[in-house]
Amino acid sequence: MPHDPIFGSISRRSTALPEALKLPMVAGTTDTMLEFALRQRLAPEGLPEHALGRMESLVLQLARVQNGTSIEFDLLAFDSPQLVVFAADHGIADEGMSSMGPSMTEQMVMQLLRGQSPVNALAASHGFDLTVVDAGMAKPISPPNDTRLRGALLLRKIAYGTRNVLLGPAMSTAQAVSAVHAGMDVVRHLPGNVIALGDVGVANSVSAALLLSRLCGVPLVDAFSRDDAEARNLDDSQHVQRVEKLSAAAARHRHAISPFEALAALGGFEIAMMTGAMLQAASERRVVLVDGYVAGAAALVARGLCPDVVDYLVFTHRAADVGHRLLLIHMQTQPLLDMGLRIGQGTGALLAWPMLLAAQSLLER
Amino acid sequence: MPHDPIFGSISRRSTALPEALKLPMVAGTTDTMLEFALRQRLAPEGLPEHALGRMESLVLQLARVQNGTSIEFDLLAFDSPQLVVFAADHGIADEGMSSMGPSMTEQMVMQLLRGQSPVNALAASHGFDLTVVDAGMAKPISPPNDTRLRGALLLRKIAYGTRNVLLGPAMSTAQAVSAVHAGMDVVRHLPGNVIALGDVGVANSVSAALLLSRLCGVPLVDAFSRDDAEARNLDDSQHVQRVEKLSAAAARHRHAISPFEALAALGGFEIAMMTGAMLQAASERRVVLVDGYVAGAAALVARGLCPDVVDYLVFTHRAADVGHRLLLIHMQTQPLLDMGLRIGQGTGALLAWPMLLAAQSLLER
Repeated sequence: MPHDPIFGSISRRSTALPEALKLPMVAGTTDTMLEFALRQRLAPEGLPEHALGRMESLVLQLARVQNGTSIEFDLLAFDSPQLVVFAADHGIADEGMSSMGPSMTEQMVMQLLRGQSPVNALAASHGFDLTVVDAGMAKPISPPNDTRLRGALLLRKIAYGTRNVLLGPAMSTAQAVSAVHAGMDVVRHLPGNVIALGDVGVANSVSAALLLSRLCGVPLVDAFSRDDAEARNLDDSQHVQRVEKLSAAAARHRHAISPFEALAALGGFEIAMMTGAMLQAASERRVVLVDGYVAGAAALVARGLCPDVVDYLVFTHRAADVGHRLLLIHMQTQPLLDMGLRIGQGTGALLAWPMLLAAQSLLER
Repeated sequence: MPHDPIFGSISRRSTALPEALKLPMVAGTTDTMLEFALRQRLAPEGLPEHALGRMESLVLQLARVQNGTSIEFDLLAFDSPQLVVFAADHGIADEGMSSMGPSMTEQMVMQLLRGQSPVNALAASHGFDLTVVDAGMAKPISPPNDTRLRGALLLRKIAYGTRNVLLGPAMSTAQAVSAVHAGMDVVRHLPGNVIALGDVGVANSVSAALLLSRLCGVPLVDAFSRDDAEARNLDDSQHVQRVEKLSAAAARHRHAISPFEALAALGGFEIAMMTGAMLQAASERRVVLVDGYVAGAAALVARGLCPDVVDYLVFTHRAADVGHRLLLIHMQTQPLLDMGLRIGQGTGALLAWPMLLAAQSLLER
């Protein structure tokens, strides 16, 4: 193998995946015949070309996902849609990276399970089943003893939070492999052909920023900007201090440049599980609704592991974070909505869900 | 009255409304007590401020519209939503201003009545009743003799199309007054508390561009850009020729500077009726869903006649037209969706409707 004068033999390491990691097969969906048939069908005679704008792209994407085996044209059918919210804690939160207290991860999970979060209202009105996964929360958690529970709690804890990335890699290779596998496993056991992925975790946008910066070459100061939910109440020096800490973390893990290595060194358990969930869902030709910045970071890693996965990802929402905007540009995608949410949990995904129902109606006409 | 050294006595004319014009009373909706109560209610404890981003603004706007008489907090209730599509022809179309043939207005109306347009599918799935209004189509039209009709046809024709604005004002003052009154009348006779307004009319984005340019000082070359549906298939010289014609029309009607005068000189019958419809709906505290560029131009005129009307307008969608983008900036509003539609008819309004339903669910939680 050629010796790179600058990076040495890093290029070898960057492409290697751990042997233990078993990823599902994902097939791309491109089919130009279908595209032609659909465009004809969508626009009534006489209308300008692309009259339905980006709705046409959405219809096309969904039709490709659901018409894998033939160019025969079928209508879109959505079945038992699932909302899966992965919750985990992040060691970097110890460094005062978030304006939310350390107990907020647990509190938000409880709000979700009790149906008190905004996304519960949307899930109820759209008929999504909710599964909350403890991917690695800092405390043991048990489902609240309450008969009015709105969601199932799955215990797939990899560890009690990731390590502080200033002190070491967020997770070991074995933990990262386990987390990706757990995400795959969660999806495999859920019914339906639509899956919305959300996240809960104090300081998880820090992980998203580190991953975006590493995998796309975005400066940390942009990936983790002042506008972010986590950083809005800071004065200048506090913000500079945070960015300096992130730079130190990035420098410490400068050899972790492949998507999987970056995931292990800088990611979070919920991000790793969402990565696995996306790959598994795509391999089963399910439609995947991708929520905000943190789910977007998982999509970035998933794309790095298997580029064809993006055919199945519907980016639903652009969050308030500037970093998320940059991430979407790097993914070369435009999300369906731009409502400036500062909340994860799949809220944006469920807000955008009616656009997919509209795509379905437009074809049934 | 002071004599303006540049404009002479235009300022007198610009504020005068025709005596025959009877506009309804519209009351603004501002209520800061409600705002406080709602923000508390929307965000669960511990979440970042403005966690729901622009959904909060939408909830607030809707709650203010529906809580006019008290600061007691009620849930949102939507009742018998109506889609009203106003159809008219434009004399300026004779100048080759549109890539659509002159018969397209009629053809699109027939598609709407027969349920063949994209918006029909959306109306059906959301339970909107459809009313198509002949505001001034170039031909006599009668409802198709078909028992499967999807919409009612109202005959409120002011004339067989507007005049060519290169040759004279689009409509007389009396016609403009009649059209605004007809729009008010249409709304007055419809049930429910939600009204979505759409438009059909070959070359009506030309009228929208002329109104935007006149009322907001936007250069015509920006208000009527190459990206517009009407102008996409033109070569450079054809486009320049069109903009020159628009400039000639604007110059001819340079004294028509008040919103109502501009409407009469440069507008269209569907725009005038939508203006009346918006004012009437606002006076009855109905929520008004405003679709694309042409409905946006009507909103601009309505705001000019009665600034408080904007409290009731929900801008649903940013169309592909650059002019529409500029119009929304001048209205200081951000629409709910940005899907690049190149179709009117209320399509964008009905695509965005689920966001209002989501606002409703978020409060019911």
